[in-house]
Amino acid sequence: MASDVEALAKAARAASRGVAKAGGARRAEALRAIADCIEGGRGAILEANREDLAAAREAGMQGALLDRLALDEKRVVAMASAVREIGGLADPIGQRVKEWRRPNGLRIARQRIPLGVIAIIYEARPNVTSDAAALCLKAGNAVILRGGSEAFRSNRAIAQAIATGLAQAGLPAEAVLLLPTTDRAAMVELLQRDEEIDLVIPRGGEGLIRFVAEHSRIPVIKHYRGNCHVFVEATASPSMALDICYNAKVQRPGVCNAAETILIDTQIAATFLPLLSQRLGDAGVELRADARARALVPSLRSATEADFATEFLDLVCAIGIVEGIDGAIAHIERFGSSHTEAIVTGDPIAARRFLDEVDSSTVVVNASTRFADGGELGLGAEIGISTTRLHAYGPMGVEELTTTKFVVEGNGQVRT
Amino acid sequence: MASDVEALAKAARAASRGVAKAGGARRAEALRAIADCIEGGRGAILEANREDLAAAREAGMQGALLDRLALDEKRVVAMASAVREIGGLADPIGQRVKEWRRPNGLRIARQRIPLGVIAIIYEARPNVTSDAAALCLKAGNAVILRGGSEAFRSNRAIAQAIATGLAQAGLPAEAVLLLPTTDRAAMVELLQRDEEIDLVIPRGGEGLIRFVAEHSRIPVIKHYRGNCHVFVEATASPSMALDICYNAKVQRPGVCNAAETILIDTQIAATFLPLLSQRLGDAGVELRADARARALVPSLRSATEADFATEFLDLVCAIGIVEGIDGAIAHIERFGSSHTEAIVTGDPIAARRFLDEVDSSTVVVNASTRFADGGELGLGAEIGISTTRLHAYGPMGVEELTTTKFVVEGNGQVRT
Repeated sequence: MASDVEALAKAARAASRGVAKAGGARRAEALRAIADCIEGGRGAILEANREDLAAAREAGMQGALLDRLALDEKRVVAMASAVREIGGLADPIGQRVKEWRRPNGLRIARQRIPLGVIAIIYEARPNVTSDAAALCLKAGNAVILRGGSEAFRSNRAIAQAIATGLAQAGLPAEAVLLLPTTDRAAMVELLQRDEEIDLVIPRGGEGLIRFVAEHSRIPVIKHYRGNCHVFVEATASPSMALDICYNAKVQRPGVCNAAETILIDTQIAATFLPLLSQRLGDAGVELRADARARALVPSLRSATEADFATEFLDLVCAIGIVEGIDGAIAHIERFGSSHTEAIVTGDPIAARRFLDEVDSSTVVVNASTRFADGGELGLGAEIGISTTRLHAYGPMGVEELTTTKFVVEGNGQVRT
Repeated sequence: MASDVEALAKAARAASRGVAKAGGARRAEALRAIADCIEGGRGAILEANREDLAAAREAGMQGALLDRLALDEKRVVAMASAVREIGGLADPIGQRVKEWRRPNGLRIARQRIPLGVIAIIYEARPNVTSDAAALCLKAGNAVILRGGSEAFRSNRAIAQAIATGLAQAGLPAEAVLLLPTTDRAAMVELLQRDEEIDLVIPRGGEGLIRFVAEHSRIPVIKHYRGNCHVFVEATASPSMALDICYNAKVQRPGVCNAAETILIDTQIAATFLPLLSQRLGDAGVELRADARARALVPSLRSATEADFATEFLDLVCAIGIVEGIDGAIAHIERFGSSHTEAIVTGDPIAARRFLDEVDSSTVVVNASTRFADGGELGLGAEIGISTTRLHAYGPMGVEELTTTKFVVEGNGQVRT
């Protein structure tokens, strides 16, 4: 086993040079070819997926998990379209991010380059296989994929289609490698290969992410959870605040950028809270309120302290009354998860303070927390959302899968 | 012990919020106060340093190591001046790095914020204590310092001066904390505190860096070694090439951005190599040459393969003859350390290929490798040079001690 993982990592490292040197046009061509091969190979992919599904059902999988694993014609076509879209994004590699000149005449620039080799560790969602591969390739990287065991046959079929597409475009087929086993020991061994792998991105539940972070010698970009807040400040337009709270909580409660707690300034709580509890109540949301909120609307259920720390991912919402913007910021510092927080306010000074002082990866004024998403922010696509600060913080697009080197151009300068 | 390190890390985390919120003017004021306190407290610092030196001598330390440990009036004043200079740099925090607008009217920006808490692990150089603290504070961070045991008394005295300066400016004194023991177990425990510490930067020899990387759960920015190359391409001006090779090798051979290998294009080797061996030989450099070079200048000592992989840090230089730019790039890929490589050339196409295809953190055209330095590149100051790609690659200044968050400003937008 040992030598297999080592050989795989070394092959990816060698392939990464080929991907980097191929140039943006060739990489874009490869992504078009991969999209075609996924569409053209959908028979084999769906067949492999049926086997995965049968085994998963036999093992007792059901509900949302089974739905995440399942592919159909439409989903495979959507996977191919996503690859095509990523292929059409601007090529980040070679861009000069910043240029300046030194008094001695040296011209300095920071030029964008690929990270190298990225490992993606994920659960039983076959579409991550093609999404992650496409994003890493677009940024000029090689990628090693390790998906959940339940999706292994599907992932193998998708990886086969990707390899065919790479070869058609003249890129090394080892630029996208699927770990050939879902054995945990092999994953742990992969996480030790810091000579060949530059970055690990785990995508999945908190357990997976903690496991990867604990066992990795390679830097890990983590996304633990999204305990997102909306703060309705004293000068907020009540109708705007109601729309934003509703959207942030109700539109898709199961995702990480949905709101989990709504904080209301004590100055408008008496008028706003009844409106909010009606609006959210009508949508089937269970409100869990602190003592001050229950003093205003006694019918609300009481919130425990744990409720304010919980990512419900469901039609449940904690409600707290706070003393102005300082109270809101203190609450968020205590309970927040560095993901996304929004303020609704008519006061530009309050807006500015919130933007400056809340240290979450996305801070929002007068809009829904649901915009904390690579696509919505205009990054083109998203490989994940980082809630740790090193390298990338917040939604990560293609650019976040690159780094920069210094380029120095002179005409004979030496140091004295 | 356990609880001491935990308490220290938590105190730094709490202080980091105060540093971030204090604003750039207050942070600059603190750095001025710290500089004054270091200068004013030089009696105590020098007294502590004398004790360190006596103990080190008794333990058998000598030569360059002892010189690095030693402070005198002039060196303490230089430390204070460096802190003052860092204080005078532009404040990076709050800068909007990039701004754009979405079709739905949302205005998006990436706004620069501190990383949070940075741990610096270093050896017996007391000036790192004030340098590292100043750079971290300038970028709005708190810092935990762990210096070598030989410098412990000096570091404690410097940290005391820093704490006084912080307090004078109204910043939390816990913003700069010295680990109160040089026990290795305490350092290892510190490296586990990934809840409180965002980044670890080891500064020192390869052994220290490997130790930190192996024991850390916190991301580590590594700088292993600088095996830097100068490639003299066929169209190079011989006199410019001689000056650059001489400067890169001889001006300060003991530093990481000095050249260790000079590669010469086979097309000009017959004329250039004799000139080079004379110029470097006159400066006392021992040349170790490959077979092709020795065929041209038989008096040269023969290089082993290991020589091409060695960071001599001394007046020793490996010489290789290569086939054009492809040969040079292949050699650098095989032996390079991702630090700094230079090409001397009169051909803009060769220059461009070298800049694009060599993936070291600094690539240089027609200038000395010795410019790979934060100060020389215009970063203002330098906390180290990263040879790994995540977060920062190459010389790291104040900006590299920050990250960015997404700022989203709307007027009621919700997701549909």
